[in-house]
Amino acid sequence: MAAELSPEKLSETHRPTLDQALDAIRTRAYWSPHPEHPKAYGEGGPAGSLGAAEGKAAFDAVLNTRLDLGQPGTDGWTGGEVSPYGPKLGVEYPHADPDVLLPAMIAAMGGWRAAGPETRALVCLEILARISARTHELAHAVMHTSGQAFVMAFQAGGPHAQDRGLEAVAYAYAEQTRTPHTADWSKPQGKRDPLRLHKTYHAVGRGVSLLIGCNTFPTWNGYPGLFASLATGNPVLVKPHPRAVLPLALTVQLAREVLAEAGFDPNLVALAAERPGEGIAKTLALRPEIKIIDYTGSTAFGDWLEANARQAQVYTEKAGVNTIVIDSTDDYRGMLSNLAFSLSLYSGQMCTTPQNLLIPRDGVPTDTGHKTYEDVVTDIAGAMTGLLDDDARANGLLGALVNPDVRARLDQAAGLGEVALPSRQVAHPDFPEAVVRTPVLIKLDGTDPDGGSACLSECFGPVSFAVAVESTTAALDLLRRTIREQGAMTVGAYTTSPEVERAVEDVCFDESAQLSLNLTGGVYVNQTAAFSDFHGSGGNPAANAALCDGAFVSNRFRVVEVRRQA
Amino acid sequence: MAAELSPEKLSETHRPTLDQALDAIRTRAYWSPHPEHPKAYGEGGPAGSLGAAEGKAAFDAVLNTRLDLGQPGTDGWTGGEVSPYGPKLGVEYPHADPDVLLPAMIAAMGGWRAAGPETRALVCLEILARISARTHELAHAVMHTSGQAFVMAFQAGGPHAQDRGLEAVAYAYAEQTRTPHTADWSKPQGKRDPLRLHKTYHAVGRGVSLLIGCNTFPTWNGYPGLFASLATGNPVLVKPHPRAVLPLALTVQLAREVLAEAGFDPNLVALAAERPGEGIAKTLALRPEIKIIDYTGSTAFGDWLEANARQAQVYTEKAGVNTIVIDSTDDYRGMLSNLAFSLSLYSGQMCTTPQNLLIPRDGVPTDTGHKTYEDVVTDIAGAMTGLLDDDARANGLLGALVNPDVRARLDQAAGLGEVALPSRQVAHPDFPEAVVRTPVLIKLDGTDPDGGSACLSECFGPVSFAVAVESTTAALDLLRRTIREQGAMTVGAYTTSPEVERAVEDVCFDESAQLSLNLTGGVYVNQTAAFSDFHGSGGNPAANAALCDGAFVSNRFRVVEVRRQA
Repeated sequence: MAAELSPEKLSETHRPTLDQALDAIRTRAYWSPHPEHPKAYGEGGPAGSLGAAEGKAAFDAVLNTRLDLGQPGTDGWTGGEVSPYGPKLGVEYPHADPDVLLPAMIAAMGGWRAAGPETRALVCLEILARISARTHELAHAVMHTSGQAFVMAFQAGGPHAQDRGLEAVAYAYAEQTRTPHTADWSKPQGKRDPLRLHKTYHAVGRGVSLLIGCNTFPTWNGYPGLFASLATGNPVLVKPHPRAVLPLALTVQLAREVLAEAGFDPNLVALAAERPGEGIAKTLALRPEIKIIDYTGSTAFGDWLEANARQAQVYTEKAGVNTIVIDSTDDYRGMLSNLAFSLSLYSGQMCTTPQNLLIPRDGVPTDTGHKTYEDVVTDIAGAMTGLLDDDARANGLLGALVNPDVRARLDQAAGLGEVALPSRQVAHPDFPEAVVRTPVLIKLDGTDPDGGSACLSECFGPVSFAVAVESTTAALDLLRRTIREQGAMTVGAYTTSPEVERAVEDVCFDESAQLSLNLTGGVYVNQTAAFSDFHGSGGNPAANAALCDGAFVSNRFRVVEVRRQA
Repeated sequence: MAAELSPEKLSETHRPTLDQALDAIRTRAYWSPHPEHPKAYGEGGPAGSLGAAEGKAAFDAVLNTRLDLGQPGTDGWTGGEVSPYGPKLGVEYPHADPDVLLPAMIAAMGGWRAAGPETRALVCLEILARISARTHELAHAVMHTSGQAFVMAFQAGGPHAQDRGLEAVAYAYAEQTRTPHTADWSKPQGKRDPLRLHKTYHAVGRGVSLLIGCNTFPTWNGYPGLFASLATGNPVLVKPHPRAVLPLALTVQLAREVLAEAGFDPNLVALAAERPGEGIAKTLALRPEIKIIDYTGSTAFGDWLEANARQAQVYTEKAGVNTIVIDSTDDYRGMLSNLAFSLSLYSGQMCTTPQNLLIPRDGVPTDTGHKTYEDVVTDIAGAMTGLLDDDARANGLLGALVNPDVRARLDQAAGLGEVALPSRQVAHPDFPEAVVRTPVLIKLDGTDPDGGSACLSECFGPVSFAVAVESTTAALDLLRRTIREQGAMTVGAYTTSPEVERAVEDVCFDESAQLSLNLTGGVYVNQTAAFSDFHGSGGNPAANAALCDGAFVSNRFRVVEVRRQA
C-alpha cells in the first residue's frame, strides 16, 4: 500500500471532515467543505486544486482522446458525445465485456469488506477530494454534456454534487457503525453461571452496484448512489447516459486512481460506456451479479427496473409534476421574482422545477392589493421577461436545451393552451449552435376537465402552466391528486393564512412531498442543500428514495454476526 | 384523553425502558425487561400481571366465546381453530369488510402522525406492558395454536416476542429522531446577508401496514413488523394464520384498548380474520391502501408478495436450509448434546433449526479421539435418544406437530435415505390427541449427486440429514451453494482450526448468513436474543429483512420537510 494513502494518513486528512459531515446530518444546519465560488480554486484554494485556466486546459486536453481506464474486459472503444453548445467532444471510452468485468469487480470485494466502514469512508473522502480539486475541469465536462450554463455546471456539478456524495458517505458510515464491531453478551442464569457469548458484527456489501446516470445532472444525481454503495462495501459499475459520459468517466478515473494508491483493487469502480443504441442498461440491470441499482430518468424505465430487476435493490428518481399553490402573499414582488428565477433556471430542465402554478380564478390578496388571475399571470410573465431580457444574463441562467426532445416539447407546448409568455431564442456569443430558449408560460383552465388536463402529466423542460382554479381548496385538491398520481419532487405555496399553511402541510404529509413555503428571497424551490434538505421524499411516484436518509443506505449492506461461546 | 395515559404519565412510566432499549441496540449486550420465568408473573411480578392460575383462567374464559373487538366494517364472525393438542378453541372473531375497515384505519393516521415519534413509541411500550402482564394467558394461546410445549410457548411467545417488539420500537424511534424536528439553516453570502431558512422535519407513515402471521410463532414473528409499523406512524391490519388467530387477536384487543385510553383512534390496529379457504391475504396484499407488508411463511407466497404487491414495502421471512459444518471439536460431548437439543426443540419446527449436518466421510478429530462419519452419526443419534428418552422431558421439549403437513413430511422422510434414528410417537399425559413425535435423522451421501439432493431443499419439521461429504472444503462448497440457492436463517460450525473458522466466515460473509461457532453449552444455534442477535440477514433467499436493524424500519416512514424563509 502506498505510504501516502495509508489508513493513518487518510484518517489524519479526512477524519475531521467525516466528523463534521456526521454532525451536519444530525443538526441539518448549513455546512459544506466544498467552496462554491470558481475563484476559490487553484492557488490558495483546496490542496492541488486546478484554477480556472488550468481546469479549462485540462478539459481541452481530454477532448479528442481515448480515455483508457485500464479496465479488464475492454473489448473496444466507443464515444460520440456532442455538446448541447455545439462542439463534438471526441472522447473515446472503453467498452466492457461484462462477462470479464463483473467477475473482476466481485473479486475486489473481499479486501474492501475487510477494510471496514471507517477506511472505506476515508477512501471515499479522498476520492471526493480529488474530484473537488478538479472541479473546474469537471464543470466544463458537465456544461458540455448537460447544457447547463458554466456557473451552474460549476456549482451544481461540482461542490453541490460533491456535498451530496459526502452526505451519502456520512450516512453509510453512520449506518454501518450503529452496530458495534464486537459485543460480549452475558445472560444471567440465576444461581448457575451466566451464558456467555463473544460476538462480532460485520457489514457486508451485497454485490455489484449499477449506477445508471442521467443526462442533465450526471454528477449531482450520480454521486449519492455511487458513494453510498462504495462506502457500504459494494463495487460500483457506472453506466453513464450516452450523452453525458465524460463527467462520470473522469470520476471513475479518479476513483480508480485513489483505490489503487490506497492498496485496493481499482476494479471496485468501473465504467460501462455503451455503443450507440446498444441499450446496455437493460441487459446489465438483469445480470445476477447486480444487487443494487441507482437510476435517474424516465418513469417508464424506472418502473421497468423496479418491476424486473428483482434480484437488486432499486433506487429510482423518475418523472414528477411539481406544483406551486398561490393563495395570498405579503411580498408580491418577492414572490414574482422568486418564481421567475425558479421557472427559468437551466430552462426548467430540473426535476425540481415547478410546472403547475395553481391560481384561484378570482385572484389573490397581496401586499400590493388584490390581484386577479390575469394580473398574476401577467406579472409572472413580466418578471420572467425582465429577468431574461438581457441576453448575457439569460445565457448565464438558462443554459442550452439538453437534447432535441426538450426542444420538441417546447415547440409543441404552445398548442396546449393560451400562451401567456412565448419562448424566445437567445443567441449565445460563444456557441452559435447552442439552442438557448426562454421558458414558455401557458394558461390552462383547471376548472374545465379537458382544459386542465395538460397539467396532469410531466412536460419536462421550459414549459410551465398557470392553472386557473376555483379556489384555494380546489388548488389543494388538485395538488393532492397531482402528487398521488404523478408524483412530485417539490411543492411550493404562498399564503399569509395559517389555516391554508396547515392545509397545504397536511396534503404534503398525506402524500409525502417536500414543501417550501413563501420563498421570496434568494432560496428557490428547485434547490436543495445537502446535509440539510431532502431531495424528494421517496414516498410518492416521483422517486422511491430520498437523498439522503437512512433508507437510502441501510439496505445496501447487511450485517453478518459471528458468535462464539466465550 | 384519559388522565392515566397522558403523554406525561406514559413518559414517566416508559421513557426509562425506551432509553435502556436504545442503549441495548447500540451495545448489543444482554438486556431484557421481560422476565423469562413463569413464576415471575402475578403477585410481586410486573404491575397488574396475571399469575399462572389467573392466566390459565383468563385463557379458559375466552374459549368458546365471540371476541368482539368493536371494529368498523364487521360483516360476520369466523373461527374454527383446533389446538395441535386436540381441543377445539371455539373462539369467534370479527370478519371485516375491507372497504369499510381500511378507510377507517386511514382516517386514524392524522392524529397518530401528529403525536410524533416519542409519544408513538411510548404508546407502543404501554401496549407491550399490557401484553407482558398477560403473558400466562398468551402462553396458553400460543401453545394451543402453534403446538409449542408450554414453557417454550411462554418464553418464545411471551418475553422473547415482547423483546423483539420492543427492539423494533427502539429502532423505529432512533430512526425517526436521527433527523431533528427543526433546524435553522443559514448560508453565508460573503458581504451580503446570509440566506436563512427555518426548517421542520416530519416523520410520516406510508399507509396501512399488513401483518400476515404465521402458524408456528404468531407473536415472535409478528410483533417486530407490527410494532415497527405502528411506531413509525402506520395503522396495522393483522391477518393471522387461520390456525393461529387467538394470540394475535388478543394482541389486537390490547392494542386497541391502549390506543383508545391514550386518546388515539383504536382503528390504528385491527384484525382481519378470514373464513375457511377465503385466502384474504392475497386480496388484501394488492389493495392500494396497503403500503407495507410483513410476512412469515412459505417461499412460494413470499415470492408472490414480493413480485406482485408492488405498491407496498414487503418484508418477508421464507423457507431456508440451515447447515452445520462439523470439521473438528475439542468438546465432542458438548457438541453432541448441543446439537441434540437444537434438532429436538419444538420438533425442529423452527425456521432456525439445523437441517443438514455436513460431516467429512473420513471423520473428524475430537478431544476423545478420531471419530468416523458413522461414529458421529451414531453419537448424535445417541445423544438425541438420551435427551428424549423420558416422555415427560420429551413432551416438554418437542411440543406437538403444528399441522398435518409436518406429520406427512416426517412420515415420508424415511424414504429419503438410510434412517440413522427413527422417529417415535410420544404419549402426552394431558392431551391424548396430540401428535408428539421425536425427530428423524437420515443419512445422505453428499458425494453422490443423487444421494445428496434431498438436503438441497427445505424439509420443514423434525427431519435432519447427516450428510457425508468428501472433506471440509467440500462441506464449505455445499454450504455456499445451499445458502445461495436455498437461503439460510442460521449456519453453525464446529472446528478447532483457525483457518477453517476463517473459511466458514468468508462463506457466510460472501453469502450473507448468520454464523454460530463451536456452540457446546446452553446457547443453541436456533435461538437468537433480541437487542443483540440478528434473526436472519436479509441478504440471502431465506429472508429479505433481518430482525431488527435500520433497514427493517427506515423505509416504513418518510421524512417530509417544510421550509420557510426565516
